[in-house]
Amino acid sequence: MSALLRVGVAGTGRIAQALVSGAAFAPEVRIVAVSSRHQAAATEFAQRYGIGRAHQGADRLADDDDVDLVYVASLNHLHHRDVCRFLDAGKHVLCEKPFALDAAKAAEMIAAAERNDRFLMDALWSRFLPSWQRVRSLVDDGAIGAPRSLSAELGFASTDPPHGRLRDRGQGGGSLLDSGIYPHAFASWFLGEPERVHAVADIGPTGVDDETSCTLTYASGAHAQIRSSFRDALASAAFVAGPDGAIELSPRMHRSTRVVLRRLGRDDVVETLPYEGNGLHLQLTHVARCIAEGRRDSPVMPLAETLGILRTLDAIRAQIGLRYDTDAQDQ
Amino acid sequence: MSALLRVGVAGTGRIAQALVSGAAFAPEVRIVAVSSRHQAAATEFAQRYGIGRAHQGADRLADDDDVDLVYVASLNHLHHRDVCRFLDAGKHVLCEKPFALDAAKAAEMIAAAERNDRFLMDALWSRFLPSWQRVRSLVDDGAIGAPRSLSAELGFASTDPPHGRLRDRGQGGGSLLDSGIYPHAFASWFLGEPERVHAVADIGPTGVDDETSCTLTYASGAHAQIRSSFRDALASAAFVAGPDGAIELSPRMHRSTRVVLRRLGRDDVVETLPYEGNGLHLQLTHVARCIAEGRRDSPVMPLAETLGILRTLDAIRAQIGLRYDTDAQDQ
Repeated sequence: MSALLRVGVAGTGRIAQALVSGAAFAPEVRIVAVSSRHQAAATEFAQRYGIGRAHQGADRLADDDDVDLVYVASLNHLHHRDVCRFLDAGKHVLCEKPFALDAAKAAEMIAAAERNDRFLMDALWSRFLPSWQRVRSLVDDGAIGAPRSLSAELGFASTDPPHGRLRDRGQGGGSLLDSGIYPHAFASWFLGEPERVHAVADIGPTGVDDETSCTLTYASGAHAQIRSSFRDALASAAFVAGPDGAIELSPRMHRSTRVVLRRLGRDDVVETLPYEGNGLHLQLTHVARCIAEGRRDSPVMPLAETLGILRTLDAIRAQIGLRYDTDAQDQ
Repeated sequence: MSALLRVGVAGTGRIAQALVSGAAFAPEVRIVAVSSRHQAAATEFAQRYGIGRAHQGADRLADDDDVDLVYVASLNHLHHRDVCRFLDAGKHVLCEKPFALDAAKAAEMIAAAERNDRFLMDALWSRFLPSWQRVRSLVDDGAIGAPRSLSAELGFASTDPPHGRLRDRGQGGGSLLDSGIYPHAFASWFLGEPERVHAVADIGPTGVDDETSCTLTYASGAHAQIRSSFRDALASAAFVAGPDGAIELSPRMHRSTRVVLRRLGRDDVVETLPYEGNGLHLQLTHVARCIAEGRRDSPVMPLAETLGILRTLDAIRAQIGLRYDTDAQDQ
């Protein structure tokens, strides 16, 4: 039996709350500590969720010897700094998506994991859902032939104010990194890294994209069409197709419980694949198993793939003119 | 009451057969004549469907004074010639899609209708289906807000041989004009004519596209993503979305009986909207009504829109290098 994985949470925002709630369904892990810039926020969070230790600041969490893994749930533009800090302190790390604002930063984070011989993973939790796993196994079993045509979208009409996180260039805002990361992770899973990208976007008044539509083409001849939106309540479906049929994941592809196998001349096969809670515990169970097995990289969400997805997003951002404040600092 | 519309069918191929079968459900029309290059084919077709007159050649059908409307079901590259011939003989015309191989030819066909004061329509029959009409009325009623995000695809894995019609450049082959015309007609209906197009394609050994993926952008800021395929059995869904939700038409968007209204925070509303036969009679009923009312252009599938769709397809063809033999003749 593997030992219980002791998890510290860096951050107290909405996704941190969701992960801690979800962790109740993962018997392999225990949330033992939380950190926040403000002691009061950390204490309040710890009390609400029954967490033993509340630290002021990430450094104290990094120094907590009774933490095996840190879940980094800070703001997008702080992931790079925080992930490297925790890795250098000897922790394993699960980093909330988007993993980094660009591929160069992701490469540095991966190098930090390697030099410290620690486990690191991009928290693309949807990939661990029964529905996503079912699509994967249908494709692997040849249900549709070789996948070559993919389309995926995720979008909603945001009511976030102009100065909110979602629309703040300083904090890595925009629909591409917030919503688009899911359809891009879906496409990458089945088609790998594209050879070429073409993207168009509606850039809002704060300089981030309200909607981005991309076409990705692959050396294999495959095509993917991807869309993310803050402005429109998209149906948010995902499809992967081959010569023998298509598989649909919808609605709300990032947390879907419904998979439809469509083949010409046959009735659709609809499967409902529920999960407990909000589903965020599934990635924790996976991470706990990886670490227990001595792995440093997840076979389901490998770091090389995280890097490839970010290279694709970098190319899209260059085309649509989505620049982050951190980009300027890099020049 | 309007008089019965007497219809002649130019061509005896699969779509001509489908239209004649469908016409049994349109009491406003009667199929009274058929023409084919070969007398035997015309006679066989007439006998099979109980049609009174079988003509050898389009000229004899054009001279048939007891025909009000000709349904042009010849090969794609012959539509231009045949439509002009029937209009000049004083017939109203319903022309099978693709209406023409390019916008320039379509403009000549429209000019022929105008100079002869005859009715002319692009046979985009799907637009008359209860499901398509339902999507239209939901959008018009504001169910999703102003439509700005659209994706639509239609594709199948073709078993047509390399020398078959679908892959013959001489006959206007390729997935774009064969399957793509449906998602393009869907996009045009809600978003109008795009300002810019971007297309990528897999061009097969005969020089036509096996699969084409397009992004269309509009002056309004709207985005559409469209795909057609001969190589992959796509799920063939269509979505139109706005700030308040999305509407889905699937599966097999071109002949769908299923409309789903998806709005965040509400249960999906699924409607099943069946139709009689193959649905091809619905456009005939519409055409009969237009002609009875003295119209020369359909308010549901106007000629100006047909022209706009073909301009879009022209731009896409230029990008993907899909050239027809008739293009060379035009130089």
